[in-house]
Amino acid sequence: MSLPPPLNPTARILMGPGPSNVHPRILQAMALPTIGHLDPEFIKIMDGTKAMLKTVFRTENELTLPVSGTGSAGQEACVANMVEPGDRCVVCIHGVFGNRMADMVARNGGEVVKVEAPWGQPIDPADVAAALAGGKTKLVAIVHAETSTGVLQPLEEISRLTHDHGALFLVDTVTSLGGHPVEVDAWGIDACYSGTQKCLGIPPGLAPITFSPRAVAALEARKSKVSSWYLDMTLVRAYWGQDRVYHHTAPVLHIYALYEALREVASEGLRARWERHNRAGSYLQDELKARGLELLAEPEHQLAPLTAVRVPERVDGPRVQERLLREHGIEIGGGLGPSAPAMWRIGLMGYNARVEIADRVLAALDTVLADEPTLSPTA
Amino acid sequence: MSLPPPLNPTARILMGPGPSNVHPRILQAMALPTIGHLDPEFIKIMDGTKAMLKTVFRTENELTLPVSGTGSAGQEACVANMVEPGDRCVVCIHGVFGNRMADMVARNGGEVVKVEAPWGQPIDPADVAAALAGGKTKLVAIVHAETSTGVLQPLEEISRLTHDHGALFLVDTVTSLGGHPVEVDAWGIDACYSGTQKCLGIPPGLAPITFSPRAVAALEARKSKVSSWYLDMTLVRAYWGQDRVYHHTAPVLHIYALYEALREVASEGLRARWERHNRAGSYLQDELKARGLELLAEPEHQLAPLTAVRVPERVDGPRVQERLLREHGIEIGGGLGPSAPAMWRIGLMGYNARVEIADRVLAALDTVLADEPTLSPTA
Repeated sequence: MSLPPPLNPTARILMGPGPSNVHPRILQAMALPTIGHLDPEFIKIMDGTKAMLKTVFRTENELTLPVSGTGSAGQEACVANMVEPGDRCVVCIHGVFGNRMADMVARNGGEVVKVEAPWGQPIDPADVAAALAGGKTKLVAIVHAETSTGVLQPLEEISRLTHDHGALFLVDTVTSLGGHPVEVDAWGIDACYSGTQKCLGIPPGLAPITFSPRAVAALEARKSKVSSWYLDMTLVRAYWGQDRVYHHTAPVLHIYALYEALREVASEGLRARWERHNRAGSYLQDELKARGLELLAEPEHQLAPLTAVRVPERVDGPRVQERLLREHGIEIGGGLGPSAPAMWRIGLMGYNARVEIADRVLAALDTVLADEPTLSPTA
Repeated sequence: MSLPPPLNPTARILMGPGPSNVHPRILQAMALPTIGHLDPEFIKIMDGTKAMLKTVFRTENELTLPVSGTGSAGQEACVANMVEPGDRCVVCIHGVFGNRMADMVARNGGEVVKVEAPWGQPIDPADVAAALAGGKTKLVAIVHAETSTGVLQPLEEISRLTHDHGALFLVDTVTSLGGHPVEVDAWGIDACYSGTQKCLGIPPGLAPITFSPRAVAALEARKSKVSSWYLDMTLVRAYWGQDRVYHHTAPVLHIYALYEALREVASEGLRARWERHNRAGSYLQDELKARGLELLAEPEHQLAPLTAVRVPERVDGPRVQERLLREHGIEIGGGLGPSAPAMWRIGLMGYNARVEIADRVLAALDTVLADEPTLSPTA
């Protein structure tokens, strides 16, 4: 076999649904000397990472750590640890990631009760109440920031309904953590997962999670083992806790990156970071609307870090994406999944959540759309 | 919360059971610009990675890719995809990692039939034959290079017995791939996983796997979904195959590192790399024996990249490890698991598989043991 060429990736502005660009200081952290996963120095790095993650999640939860996989592994860690065969689970679906949660619940033997909302709309708490009334429920699962639609889901009323019923509340914050207020303790979230490649601005590869004392009690009361050994939190927490029992070899360099990124978040201040995401996202959304483009989400449920824009009639959406990448070095996303309406998804996350980055994509979009042929109207 | 200090890890010589030190060129690759996981440039990198992985595994298997997690995630990927509830599985246990495989088989609903060997010895093919004779078996699982004991397991006879029975052959090559001959096609291995932080010399975080056409047929004939969505190869292969269907966000920078490391392996030549590991390991083992130290494995089944040394009587093994780290900046491992005999585990893997690195640990060990007090004999 001839040797493939050396790596030479083109620098891109990453404005899709993730990954986002990474701050150079964080990339530098990944080139520091590797140390062992049981080295006393590494244990201090783990402790600092846990403490800073608790601050970002706004929680006192002791079981707070990064899962050794991407955001989807964090999702599976939450579902696999909370769900046992036969458990009735209410799964809220207002986009692709809710659907995936339902799939994971079923794989773990749970009974899935779906509560759905149309693309671009949040879940109605009344529908959750009705689903809970249908039978004794172990878990309510919902996505806070639906990356497939740009919708921000209000959580507090659904949390109240869940806890009134005595169920656990599982929340996906992959696209909100670090970019929108996420209040794990104040909102009564029992199991929460996120990713690193979005508003935290770290390369993809880790999934921060946090479990409340209620979630830990449910884990400890399980009648069956967790289906996944790799994601079994009764084992993983023994490594991240005081015992330091070897479970698997931690992805040391990714944890360096997370540590440095969390220091950046702390230096900036969490509220200032939320505000920066809000400012950049609102600016982009106003400018898109001023150009006559239509957003998928309603204004009162619009995410800041991710904006889903409907592709105008007779415009070839994927072709525009391809031209933005090739002619302007800008990556944006398209619709996710076979049932998605034609859309572009534009991310302003982490390091990229700035008005000047929004201006870059707006200028490029103006240039491309100005000379883009309109498709013939289909009969 | 006060801000934890900036990262400043001490450079170590990593001579434990992994991670091993990483070549500077590979660390540099991880600081290259992040691109999207669906970027046309990234797709070329994925294709190059797959092609080079096939060369290293010595296979033509189309389903060959890195799982987005550490070696343990690769282990779980192989077990979860191959095992369905009720499947009879013969699991060979000659150390910690065989035990873990049995645990994973049970979590996936398989019936575990254990074949065991004492610490430091390989599995006897006659015992596998006897276990196979006990009933219709779906799978035989075994560890090629047992990191907890330093034993290299001969595979060819057990493979023949497995295929004569019509079962699938699952092999752990975490500590052998890139450091010992591993012949997936010639040895009839159906599902094989490895890690990146050992003989391939990449930071921990990815798990190369390969499935034979027989394994793919078994996967496609499953009656039940794979328990893990994240590791479900029917989904993952759609992203790594021609369809490029989004599954999860690939750990882009780790794949850069894997790509560059596999280019290093190809430049060096696979046989030359095996020979380098063999030379360094044999040298270390001869020198340890010349000092009167006893190795756990028998000489004819001794791994090159990992050597398990019995701690001499009346020496405090963990204290010696701690002094090597603190006074000499050298990490070695201890015994793994509660039933392990007192031992040190010394790795010479990847970039570190060199005689001069072996000399470093030997000199440090001589210095430490020279002034180490002997423990009082216990009554």
